[in-house]
Amino acid sequence: MLYSPLLLELIDALRCLPGVGPKTAQRMAFHMLDRDRDGAQQLARVMGRALEHIGYCERCRMFTEEKLCKICASTQRDPSQLCVVETPADVVAVEVSGGFSGLYFVLMGHLSPLDGIGPDQLGVDALERRLDEGEVHEVILATNPTVEGEATALYLARLLKPLGVRVTRIAMGIPVGSDLEYADEVTMSRAMEGRRDL
Amino acid sequence: MLYSPLLLELIDALRCLPGVGPKTAQRMAFHMLDRDRDGAQQLARVMGRALEHIGYCERCRMFTEEKLCKICASTQRDPSQLCVVETPADVVAVEVSGGFSGLYFVLMGHLSPLDGIGPDQLGVDALERRLDEGEVHEVILATNPTVEGEATALYLARLLKPLGVRVTRIAMGIPVGSDLEYADEVTMSRAMEGRRDL
Repeated sequence: MLYSPLLLELIDALRCLPGVGPKTAQRMAFHMLDRDRDGAQQLARVMGRALEHIGYCERCRMFTEEKLCKICASTQRDPSQLCVVETPADVVAVEVSGGFSGLYFVLMGHLSPLDGIGPDQLGVDALERRLDEGEVHEVILATNPTVEGEATALYLARLLKPLGVRVTRIAMGIPVGSDLEYADEVTMSRAMEGRRDL
Repeated sequence: MLYSPLLLELIDALRCLPGVGPKTAQRMAFHMLDRDRDGAQQLARVMGRALEHIGYCERCRMFTEEKLCKICASTQRDPSQLCVVETPADVVAVEVSGGFSGLYFVLMGHLSPLDGIGPDQLGVDALERRLDEGEVHEVILATNPTVEGEATALYLARLLKPLGVRVTRIAMGIPVGSDLEYADEVTMSRAMEGRRDL
């Protein structure tokens, strides 16, 4: 190969990032070295610090450098409702809606046996321990409405119902502001199923 | 914001990478922290080392951690031919073709006044000094056949011809193995212009 050993090593190391193949890694390496050495230096330093200090919140598994994340540490939240989501980004999505004032539990993924992600990787034992404490009265399953998200919700529902808590699933249906004409069949049939009296 | 300060800093720092917007940066940060801490640690270390040690080849501006890159340091190459390319990846593209045994000069970009990239950023003064040494008899302009690449080639041709060297441009035409029917008009007209006697 024509590139120097260290440049090859850099291109190879960049491929640990999700969605980065050989061509993108090469482009990123050239960009760093030729156009933005300061930014890259800064990134390397921040990455080192983040990997050293950021861990999981002891209660909800959100990323945080403290023992508890901001939400779990807050005294303003209702501890009787627990919303189970797949990723930290989903916590943000629920929070900005403003419609929920309970606490969260972040699975950090969904069941995916082929990728080696089972209940252990999703912290399901920690979730069960949390329910054993008795403070939670309702678990709201807010995993994604995808095949994997639905399977995860179903698995959790079967596991948690016997513990005597109310287990609910967020509603699927037509997104607000969209057009019935363009809804796919599955979403439409879910919207029909989930109809409510007015 | 709900994310911890260090996580926000990491997401922000990742945006220095080309083609990485807020959503991708977030996905990369989560992936690093949750799925591949070893890979990310390794990446941070390699980045630090690469930024410290990798510089430009003194003769051709290729990335290298030595004074001279492998090609410039080789005694097997013909110093009378100099191929001018935009990026290190283009050097590789020409090399794998096997059709060239001269030396290279890497511009690390193309003229792009709006982005603040002028002759100085492309090392044109170093290229002129190189020609003043008198060893080079032919400069082959192998910039991309894009608007910017063509403009760069034209600029260099006007600048270098008065120095008494032969200045050539790689041929544009129908790619080998493709179908005339699907060639765009500009490529087709270039292929006609560049026709040769058989």
